[in-house]
Amino acid sequence: MKKLINEPSAVVDEMLDGMVSAHPDELRRLADTNVLVRNDAPVSDKVAVVSGGGSGHEPTHAGYLGPGMLDGAAAGEVFTSPTADEISEMIQACDSGKGVLNVVKNYEGDVMNFETAGELAEMESDVEVAEVVVNDDVAVEDSLYTSGRRGVCGTILVHKVAGAMADRGEELDEVKRVAEKVIDNVATMGTALTSCVTPEKGEPTFDLAEDEIELGIGIHGEPGVERVEMMSADEITERLTEKVFDDLSPSSGAEVLTIVNGMGGTPLSELYVVNRKLQSMMEERDFMTWDAWVGDYMTSLDMQGCSVTVLVLDDELKELLAHPAATPALTVQ
Amino acid sequence: MKKLINEPSAVVDEMLDGMVSAHPDELRRLADTNVLVRNDAPVSDKVAVVSGGGSGHEPTHAGYLGPGMLDGAAAGEVFTSPTADEISEMIQACDSGKGVLNVVKNYEGDVMNFETAGELAEMESDVEVAEVVVNDDVAVEDSLYTSGRRGVCGTILVHKVAGAMADRGEELDEVKRVAEKVIDNVATMGTALTSCVTPEKGEPTFDLAEDEIELGIGIHGEPGVERVEMMSADEITERLTEKVFDDLSPSSGAEVLTIVNGMGGTPLSELYVVNRKLQSMMEERDFMTWDAWVGDYMTSLDMQGCSVTVLVLDDELKELLAHPAATPALTVQ
Repeated sequence: MKKLINEPSAVVDEMLDGMVSAHPDELRRLADTNVLVRNDAPVSDKVAVVSGGGSGHEPTHAGYLGPGMLDGAAAGEVFTSPTADEISEMIQACDSGKGVLNVVKNYEGDVMNFETAGELAEMESDVEVAEVVVNDDVAVEDSLYTSGRRGVCGTILVHKVAGAMADRGEELDEVKRVAEKVIDNVATMGTALTSCVTPEKGEPTFDLAEDEIELGIGIHGEPGVERVEMMSADEITERLTEKVFDDLSPSSGAEVLTIVNGMGGTPLSELYVVNRKLQSMMEERDFMTWDAWVGDYMTSLDMQGCSVTVLVLDDELKELLAHPAATPALTVQ
Repeated sequence: MKKLINEPSAVVDEMLDGMVSAHPDELRRLADTNVLVRNDAPVSDKVAVVSGGGSGHEPTHAGYLGPGMLDGAAAGEVFTSPTADEISEMIQACDSGKGVLNVVKNYEGDVMNFETAGELAEMESDVEVAEVVVNDDVAVEDSLYTSGRRGVCGTILVHKVAGAMADRGEELDEVKRVAEKVIDNVATMGTALTSCVTPEKGEPTFDLAEDEIELGIGIHGEPGVERVEMMSADEITERLTEKVFDDLSPSSGAEVLTIVNGMGGTPLSELYVVNRKLQSMMEERDFMTWDAWVGDYMTSLDMQGCSVTVLVLDDELKELLAHPAATPALTVQ
């Protein structure tokens, strides 16, 4: 399998340098770590919002660094949690004295290392640390790397909302409250048409037949709900979205934000075909789409496939989603 | 080959509806056409900038519709020129009386149909039409569908600069002048690691061995300069960028905008690895990167690979590139 890389073991290191060299005024890398932070971190008199996790999900997380979203992003090796030491360095580098919110996707390694890192940062620098764990993937309860549900594309909405609340100058408990409000009201379900290929292994993580897809796939290629024969985009969209609706049970007339997220190897044209069906389902159910995002937000290397995310809104969430953000991967004016 | 589509023949139609349903306030579709326009078109007292071409290059072109960039985008079927009739309808729908600039990529079908469409619009509605033809691909002189060089990712910079000049209220000849300035100072070279797969054909457009890549590939899979053994990302970046430098011959100290563009199936992480090497080459040559774009701007369906674009800047171009733009695929604040 061919990839635009040099040594497989250097991918994360070189990718991070490539990000900083694309955004030298906006981002910097903490010395001897795989942590990127806003260049102006710590931002005085502001709660910091940080995140991180294994690499391979770009633009997650470092693509969301900037005013109105994240202050720091810790990158692990591909599909591997960042170390507690590096996360702790990030927390301390981003804290202005007003505290730090860790936004953690629900994978055992991430949860453990962020927890340890928070304790380290509290001990070493007396940082006030709070944490939320995102578990928006409705496909499976417990999984290869999780107790409970996995955290996937809904995490971006937690970054956006918590980042906006912090940008407004609110206190840590308020920033945490709105992050949890997103987590309580967001659900995601994904599918893979093809496996991803990790740089180190150089071959597919799992096998899918030429006429087969996997519903409920994880963003590391973890098993989903079922393997089914290839279906049309409309049928796939229905299967994904029904499961999301089942979980959220929005009331008729509910306002929602939707995301059709590409897994990394899927052309944008196909994501728009999925969005067409998704929005027609919204109309049929009498839900009001307040905003519809279509693109690659939370990927799985070169996997072909997509996920559907729905967030049920209230006035506070709409205000925070509309709050300006300026990051490499997401701009809200 | 699996794709997130319904009937292959319906892909373009459904993709366009999916785009409008993602951006209902910003975009609309002209009835019975594959043309999308800004919802507020024609924008009064403003030169309109329009473009178009075969589909399969998303977000090109409709992703660049909006204030500060394009007024209209005509989509052909996949890798097929839009018809002269539809282009003419677009021109007439976008004209406010101040004239229209056609931005055309240099492919025979596009050039012919835009020319005919311009004549039609002039005859039918007395629209003043001007045209520029983008030919930034330095790989080959003449090609499968071209006399002269092909138009590729540099086209986005023409959209940006001409769109900004129009947004400032300048006249058609001035908008055309700056579009030509971009064309005179931009060069691109691309590579494919894998072939694209069109929805209709459902199998690779061309064959590449597992250890082979093609340098100088076209965005429809047209033959490039040479097939070589798979190389490292750094070597590929050198080969592409050297050819771009040879064409542009920027003087030492020149300010440039660079693009590392993904072909549709390449993970963002790999594009950042390429950008790292590109920026180190810029430093070695003593060129100043004023801005570095990394992402999918001009794709070829699900092709894996990338292209490198360099635009040599002057003060006027920098001002126009920094002018605000608000489109689905590009936001400048």
